[in-house]
Amino acid sequence: MLFMSTDRYAARRDNLLHRLAKDGPGDLLVTNPTNVRYLTGFSGDDSFLLLGRSGTILISDARFTTQIAEECPGLETHIRPPGTFMHEATAEVLKQARPAAVAFESNHLTHHGWTQIAEASKAIEFVPKAGLVEESRQIKDAGEVAEIREAVRQAERGVAAMRAGLTGEMTELQAAAELEYAMRKFGGRKPSFDPIVAVGARAALPHARPGEARISEGELVLVDWGSTNAGGYRSDLTRVWGTARISAELEKVHGVVLAAQRRAIAEIRPGIDCREVDAVARKEIERAGYGEQFGHGLGHGIGLDVHEGPRLGPSSKDVLKAGMVVTVEPGVYLPG
Amino acid sequence: MLFMSTDRYAARRDNLLHRLAKDGPGDLLVTNPTNVRYLTGFSGDDSFLLLGRSGTILISDARFTTQIAEECPGLETHIRPPGTFMHEATAEVLKQARPAAVAFESNHLTHHGWTQIAEASKAIEFVPKAGLVEESRQIKDAGEVAEIREAVRQAERGVAAMRAGLTGEMTELQAAAELEYAMRKFGGRKPSFDPIVAVGARAALPHARPGEARISEGELVLVDWGSTNAGGYRSDLTRVWGTARISAELEKVHGVVLAAQRRAIAEIRPGIDCREVDAVARKEIERAGYGEQFGHGLGHGIGLDVHEGPRLGPSSKDVLKAGMVVTVEPGVYLPG
Repeated sequence: MLFMSTDRYAARRDNLLHRLAKDGPGDLLVTNPTNVRYLTGFSGDDSFLLLGRSGTILISDARFTTQIAEECPGLETHIRPPGTFMHEATAEVLKQARPAAVAFESNHLTHHGWTQIAEASKAIEFVPKAGLVEESRQIKDAGEVAEIREAVRQAERGVAAMRAGLTGEMTELQAAAELEYAMRKFGGRKPSFDPIVAVGARAALPHARPGEARISEGELVLVDWGSTNAGGYRSDLTRVWGTARISAELEKVHGVVLAAQRRAIAEIRPGIDCREVDAVARKEIERAGYGEQFGHGLGHGIGLDVHEGPRLGPSSKDVLKAGMVVTVEPGVYLPG
Repeated sequence: MLFMSTDRYAARRDNLLHRLAKDGPGDLLVTNPTNVRYLTGFSGDDSFLLLGRSGTILISDARFTTQIAEECPGLETHIRPPGTFMHEATAEVLKQARPAAVAFESNHLTHHGWTQIAEASKAIEFVPKAGLVEESRQIKDAGEVAEIREAVRQAERGVAAMRAGLTGEMTELQAAAELEYAMRKFGGRKPSFDPIVAVGARAALPHARPGEARISEGELVLVDWGSTNAGGYRSDLTRVWGTARISAELEKVHGVVLAAQRRAIAEIRPGIDCREVDAVARKEIERAGYGEQFGHGLGHGIGLDVHEGPRLGPSSKDVLKAGMVVTVEPGVYLPG
């Protein structure tokens, strides 16, 4: 596990408060557990963070007292007593902090959760804000980049171990089990998403789930997988392996996809529009006559979530900045 | 995998429509993917179900076309074109169905999602409804009970295999990895939640996460784990094993907890208040002088989610009915 100083979390909170002060209420109720983790280091769930001019306070319950003390020494906490609901505890904390208005994460809090909290704190105005912390999370610092690299390494070592033990008799499900097990041996805490192992025609589906097909049943195996490291950072990789003699067309398509990926990666730099990076890869694939078979965006940001901003796609309005980490995953899906 | 006829899903939808007609608008927009699965058999995500007098329609995208055809033959679908957002596709479908009002799952849809959908369909009234499908899901049919039994069996066989290979040198994390791997060998698709393996003093935390502690470092190991079967049904079990000579007090506590569990199970029958079942176990533990050390509810419903209704606890208002499946998990947590 990499060391993350508590100062780093305080700096993230300061940065966010600075952005909040310029734009809307000065206080923010963070309900998304991934955002709570990003801002405090606390890796549990069922806990909210109130962040504001009058201070920072984590609203949690007694199950997490020990973990909070270990993961966020010095952070002020409000431990709700048994029998008290979260919205009641939040109202209690807001009564102490007394902001006139508080922003909330409208892309995470449910309609029901919002109604409950707003009704328990009628004197306060609740202002919907979508994606504020997620926007900060797009820019990674050196420690975060190292964590993502670690998650990539776990995934790469895991898949190499799985591949080394692969036989034609194994099913997609068995191969997926071997992959998950191997990633854990190399320090992964869990897959970053349910891994895809797809044989033959199923490899042409952008979203296949492993089943009982045997590795030897097709000429290709597709693996789409990733690892989550101890710090919660994720990786997302794809490989296609030939398990028989590959047809000339498949070999050609492989070259086209590889060229598209290399060109896109060469284009990546601070200041470039994400849709331009997508366009470079897309043009390469279109020129080869496979434009129709590349039906999704080129890639996406990655970090504590496997899919986060920015988005590399034809309609993306994002601009790349220093510190962003993105996947570059062009594909040509030939039916069958 | 157990066979579930498509008629079963149609019957669930009819049942829900019947309940809807009595109480509120006749149409319901289902956004929670677990509820979509319960009502259609579709196991993917990013898809909404509109259920109403004018018919049933699944709103999804092209990634899932093959999977929907396999899992829900005959179900009407609206596949949103690339570049169309979910709320736009939902508005499109609502424009065809033309209900005056539609209920939505306010305990799942985010404030932001609700705003987007409501703004794209201004002529329609959106009525918040929390937990409507979840209420139906509390009562399991024979097929669902069989699926849960299968998930229990996968968990039991997995933990037996892990235990058979356990050594004092293994860490909590290694034991958790062996457990997950073994459950997959017995047909499990993934853990039903991140398994807890906790040694010594950490076994006294209701929410420990596996770490680098070695099995031999304490006199006890606690394992709290479960499996998810191919149908998505889950199990949730806990075991405490002695790894050294157990103290007389621990042996006594074990007897108290076992007696509390047995008494509670004996009490379970259709018509009984859930808080009464909890009270029977709680009284047993209080009589032995450990009431303070049993700080959580007695149990919970289980099915497609690892935690669902009804709730067995001191403040529960639920009543047990035939077909409900609940965990019974009293505990005494002695600090250290």
